[in-house]
Parts: sequence; C-alpha cells; structure tokens
Amino acid sequence: MTGLESALLDAARAADHRDACARLDAGDRLASCRDRFALPEGLIYLDGNSLGPLPRGVPERLHRVVHDEWGDGLVRSWNAAGWIDLPARVGARIAPLIGAQPGDVLVADSTSINLFKVLAAALRLRPDRHAIVTERGNFPSDLYVAQGLVAHLGGHHVLRMVDGDALADAIDEDVAVVMLTHVDYRTGRMHDMAAVTAAAHGAGALALWDLAHSAGAVPVDVTASGADMAIGCGYKYLNGGPGAPAFVYVAPALQALTVSPLTGWLGHAAPFAFDPAFHPADGIRRMQCGTPAILALAALDAALDAWEGVAMADVRAKSLALSELFIARATADCAPLGATVALPLPPERRGSQVSLRHPQGYAVMQALIARGVVGDFRTPDLMRFGFAPLYTRYVDVWDAVAMLHDVLASGAWDRPEFRERAAVT
Amino acid sequence: MTGLESALLDAARAADHRDACARLDAGDRLASCRDRFALPEGLIYLDGNSLGPLPRGVPERLHRVVHDEWGDGLVRSWNAAGWIDLPARVGARIAPLIGAQPGDVLVADSTSINLFKVLAAALRLRPDRHAIVTERGNFPSDLYVAQGLVAHLGGHHVLRMVDGDALADAIDEDVAVVMLTHVDYRTGRMHDMAAVTAAAHGAGALALWDLAHSAGAVPVDVTASGADMAIGCGYKYLNGGPGAPAFVYVAPALQALTVSPLTGWLGHAAPFAFDPAFHPADGIRRMQCGTPAILALAALDAALDAWEGVAMADVRAKSLALSELFIARATADCAPLGATVALPLPPERRGSQVSLRHPQGYAVMQALIARGVVGDFRTPDLMRFGFAPLYTRYVDVWDAVAMLHDVLASGAWDRPEFRERAAVT
Repeated sequence: MTGLESALLDAARAADHRDACARLDAGDRLASCRDRFALPEGLIYLDGNSLGPLPRGVPERLHRVVHDEWGDGLVRSWNAAGWIDLPARVGARIAPLIGAQPGDVLVADSTSINLFKVLAAALRLRPDRHAIVTERGNFPSDLYVAQGLVAHLGGHHVLRMVDGDALADAIDEDVAVVMLTHVDYRTGRMHDMAAVTAAAHGAGALALWDLAHSAGAVPVDVTASGADMAIGCGYKYLNGGPGAPAFVYVAPALQALTVSPLTGWLGHAAPFAFDPAFHPADGIRRMQCGTPAILALAALDAALDAWEGVAMADVRAKSLALSELFIARATADCAPLGATVALPLPPERRGSQVSLRHPQGYAVMQALIARGVVGDFRTPDLMRFGFAPLYTRYVDVWDAVAMLHDVLASGAWDRPEFRERAAVT
Repeated sequence: MTGLESALLDAARAADHRDACARLDAGDRLASCRDRFALPEGLIYLDGNSLGPLPRGVPERLHRVVHDEWGDGLVRSWNAAGWIDLPARVGARIAPLIGAQPGDVLVADSTSINLFKVLAAALRLRPDRHAIVTERGNFPSDLYVAQGLVAHLGGHHVLRMVDGDALADAIDEDVAVVMLTHVDYRTGRMHDMAAVTAAAHGAGALALWDLAHSAGAVPVDVTASGADMAIGCGYKYLNGGPGAPAFVYVAPALQALTVSPLTGWLGHAAPFAFDPAFHPADGIRRMQCGTPAILALAALDAALDAWEGVAMADVRAKSLALSELFIARATADCAPLGATVALPLPPERRGSQVSLRHPQGYAVMQALIARGVVGDFRTPDLMRFGFAPLYTRYVDVWDAVAMLHDVLASGAWDRPEFRERAAVT
C-alpha cells in the first residue's frame, strides 16, 4: 500500500462528520476533474460502474463529427477525418489505463463480441486442451458467450464454472484458458491478476481478463501481470456513453498467432484490395471485423480527454478512501437497519464499488434513486454503489449513506411504485 | 414493369438536354424528400450506396439523447427513455422496407457480425450438410465471415465460391445454405430473390440474403420471396451515419430454431435475472448479443424519418429512371472517351447504382470528386455511382455525366495527386 493510500484510508475511517468529508474534498488532488463532466445539479451519481456520466467535451465533438465530418465531408471523411484509423487511435488512448502499449489495444464492437473473438482464438491456441475455466459468479454475458462458443464448436469443449476459491484446483492440464472478470460486477471483489495469470501459465493455460469494471477504476497492468488477452467496456469508468464500443487487447507475442473467428473486411491485411480470400492484418488490427461505429467511437474518444494528466495512483488512493468511507458509514448507520456490506474485503482486494445486501434491496434502491442518489440493483438482493474518483466527492458518499439511512429508517421504500420491477433493473 | 416505371424510363431515355431533366425533377413525386437531408451546397453526391448523407432530424435527436437522456437521465434512461427496446423498435421501422413484419427485424452490431450469427445458425439447421454456396464476387467481408466460420468449425464445411451464372449448378444436396448479396456492390446487378430462394429450397437448402445495397434502394420482400434469413446495413440507403448498426431478419417459422453462436446477455430470455445458464429470448431478440450502441441506434432511428410517407414503388420507378438517364448519357458522352458501363443490365436486374469501367478509374474518380461530384472507386477499375431517389435529382445525374465528360476529355485526372491511393479507396 502506498503512503497516499494509507493516509487517505486513515482519513476516511476517521471522517465522522460531513465537514471532515468536505475537508477531504478540499485536499483532493483530483477535485478539479469533476468539472470535466456534465453532472446534473443536485444528483449524487454512484452508478458510473454501470454507465459513466457525460464528459463535457463529448457534445462538441459529436456536433463536429455529425455536421462537419458526416454532413459536409460525407464519405470523404473516411480518409480526410481519419475515421478509418479511429479504432486503433482510441485503443491507443485506452492502452495506458490498462498497462498496454498503444499499438496493442483496439476498440471495436461490444465487450461480449470481443470476448467471443479472443476466447475462440485462445481455444485454437491450445488445440489439445478442452476446458475453459471461469467463475460461476462471472458476469452472465461472459458465461453465455463461453456457452455459445462451446455449443457452436460441437461440444468438444467444456466450460468449468467454479467458485472463486476453487479456481486454483480447477486449473489443470486440460485447461486451455482461464477466463475471469478482474473485478466482480456484484461485490467489487478484485482478483490478483498476476497471481491467477501465473497459475494459469503454470498449468500451460492462457489467461483472459475481462476488465469491464477495472479500466479507469483501478490500476491494471496487463503487461506486468503477463495477461494473454483482455477485453473491456467503454461505457463504465471510461464514460464513452450508452453502449459505447468495447476494447480488446492481445499480448504482443501472441498477436501473430491469434485467429479471430469473426473475420470481417476491416481485419483484413488489405481491406481495399477486395481479395476474395481472407488474410489477417498484422497485429491487433486483425481483431477488427465490420465497419466501425464512428459516432460512438468519436464519443468515446472525446470522453477519454477526462483522463488527461490523471495519475492512476491518485485514482486508486481516492477510490479506496471513498469505498472505505462508504463502508464505515454504512456499517455504522445502515447495518443496524438491515443493509450490510455484501462481501467485506481488505482494501487490496477491492475494486471501486461496494454492494450492500438488503432483502428489499430493489425497492430500497428505487426509493433512494427517487431522492436523488443513484446506484443500482443486482438480483437477488444487492444494492450497488460505484465510486468514480474523477467526479465522486467524499461529501457525496457521506450524503448518500445519510439518505440511505433515512430511507431505511423511515420505511419510505415500502411502496408499490418502488417494488414494481422495471425492464432494466 | 409498372406503368410509372415505363413512363419514367421512357422520359429518362428521351432526356437529351438539361431542361428535360429539370422538368423531370419538377414532376418528381419524391422531390420534396430532398429537403429531409442536409446536403452540402453545390455538391453532387452519388455515393449514398457507400455512406448516406445526414438526415436533418439526426442532429437534434442526438442532441436530445446526449444531453437529456445520457447527461441528465444517466443510467435511468435504459428504462425512462426506452433505450433497452431501441434495437427492436428501430428494427420494426426497417421491416416494411424489406417486406418483413415489425417483430421480425432487429438492429444490432455490424453487418458482418450479423452475418456470422445467421450463417452459423443456418449450418446448425442443416447439420447433415456441409456446403455454403456463394458468389466469388460477393462482397469480400461476406466471404471472409464465411471463411472464418468454416475454419472455426474445424474444416468440416466448405465454402463454394462460384460465378453468378453457375449458381444453379452449385446448389446440390450437400448445400446447407445459399448466401448471396442481393445487389452486387460493384456492378449493381440484382438477383431474383424469389427464384434463387426457390432453387435453394428445392435442394433442401436455406437462403440467406445480404441486403446491404438493397434496403432503401429497391423493393424487397423477404416474406413473399421466402427468404430464410437476411442481414443488411444501416449506413447506406438507410442513412444512419458512418458505421451505423446493422439489421438482421429471421423468418418467423425459423426463429425458435435459430441458435446464434454469439450468445450475449441481451439475447437471453431474462437478461436481468442474471442466470448463469443461457436461455435464448423468444423471437428475433435472441439475435441480440451485447449492450446496444444507443447513440448510433438513435441516429439511425432519426434517419428513418426520411422514409415517412414514401412508397417504395415511387422509389423504384425513380431509381430506374435515374440509372437509365445515367447509362444513356454516359454511353453517349463518356464511352467514346474510354469509360464504359461495367455490366449493361435490363432494368429489372438493376439495383440503384451503376459502375463505369476505366483503366484509370481511380484517378478519374478523384478528379471528379475534386470538382464536386462524389462517387467512389472499387478495384481494379470501377467507378461507382449510386442513385438515391430520396435526394438525387435528374439534373444531378445530367451534371455528373457532363463533369465526367469534361474530366475525361481534358485529361484533368492525369495528375499525381489524383493517382496517389488513399487509405480508403
């Protein structure tokens, strides 16, 4: 733990009134970053782990892309505005956030689609092995992608879904790839990426990491940890907008051997030769498939400006302190009212979100949202709260817990309109 | 051929001066549709078959989505702004343009990704058959997707690439699926969808159509023609913006049997139950995979307003007349200068684009673009010109051919800056 992390953790633990939080905000190195976002007045937004807020530069960039590049430039903008290189250029900007070199990350498609590409490629890299190991509690879309792939390959492979503490035992000589999400979407528990990757490699397997809840939330180093492949999401802590395109990383040494099953024209070595036979591009570009979604890519590109000059060490220290403050206050004020920390973890095992368990979590969360504190709910009973150090303030955490206490103490959640489930929960 | 088609074709053939074209524009039933697009002043845009122009309603819609729905609504907009249903809602608006029922079309991912989904599903629907039949001249990305799929399935299948006139012979008892692009991307030649589909069905095979150059360009009736599956592009004649999401159709009777290999969470029957096992949604929704790209989907949705009140019969009649005018004028004025129609076709076999062949086609096209007439180039020697009846005028066609004549007659194309190939050609 760094000195800054320890100091902020101690200060967060000691913050037993709102003024102490305000003082932490006053001393926050990242305080000025909040202005980079267009946050609604009076709202406490603790759901950036689901959808990041609107960065201020995005509307202007979209205006330019729509009016100047599309409207006036039209098809000429593929060259003139550099649209054709946007997947690689935006990938290069995400690379430092995950410890990759700029040329080794590409932005394309969705997280699930990118997972399919690299998971299928991983199985081809270990043709004599039959198992994919993952956690039963992995984000369901990752499980579904693996299930779809296994079914599609004719049932010669097996998906081993195990509990997190049984991972080490599950990684044997038949495992082609260990596929895990670095930070758990429900509990915020963070894997030791280097240790699990080493365990996979020790058994001759590859390690594939889903960084959906990691990129921009915690320091990640795919290079130092030896990760073989990684994918991640553009619309959570990277703030690229709803359904923003996702990213994909393949370790440099593996790129030439990596064969995506999704071979579209922009992954071809020479797309505009219109060769009837597919020949993959060199490097990470082979992970591209169809025509990139330029509007969405441009929004993500502009969103990444929010990271200008930001040190991930500062992000991590503040993230831990925000989480610690939340855990301390919620434990003191809300646990007696039935809302308990879902999985208490030491700081080094935490991502940047914390979940509370409550039997009526769905209704409680709706009541909280109605009062202007936005988190979200995950079945069966989890209220999730995400902390994004670029814009979450210590006073926000203080106020959010105070509001949650009020909702719980007053029973204000116990109303039909809060119990009724919406399409998206 | 309809009476309107015949009348307009005759008028187009007889138009031997610009005033005759202006009169055709004055009598054009679709003339008012041009105002639905923000076309740059003075530019003649004949490349809507590659990237449609900006519909006027798109910027305002994007402004609302970005500021109100994302900025202010944040994660709540998945429910409150109906983001979660947007793929189905936009699909339902495309459905009438291809002769489908509203509930049978979904917008998602890219054309190539959607092709992978339905092509893989088609092979599973015909497990005892081993061949995919297609044209050698099909759009390369379609060929690449099929090649990637075949390789990925372990080489038990074969992709038969044949010439268009050898299709009938290639469809035998081992063919699982006939995969074709309805309108050829280079020559504009249009297949008889019903006849080829019947031939596929006659041999027990499925018929899968790529409608990239058809939707919004020519009348399509997937229902009447009996097509089993179809995919298509959002950014050509549908004007959804660069890299707009694509659409996918599966015939109602097949939907429950159709298994996509790309099984992401939003194709699950109950995405927010977070079930660790995948169970596909009913109907076309199972073709969804990851989180939809809302900004891009909203742009496409707004773009589809341009079709309000438009009858495809009017679109077809004008399209044929524009093409006929172009062919007649180019044959008279440009063929003697070396630019000849690439594949002369009777009207009923034409899509909505025409290509001219010229040994220096690339440089000629660049010179033409520099003078404000935008078409594009396809290797080795094709200059493509697309006609979009919603905004292309008869005088545009007249002026474009006159400009092409000038470029050819003057040799203005023979300059280094026009010969040098850009990244995107």
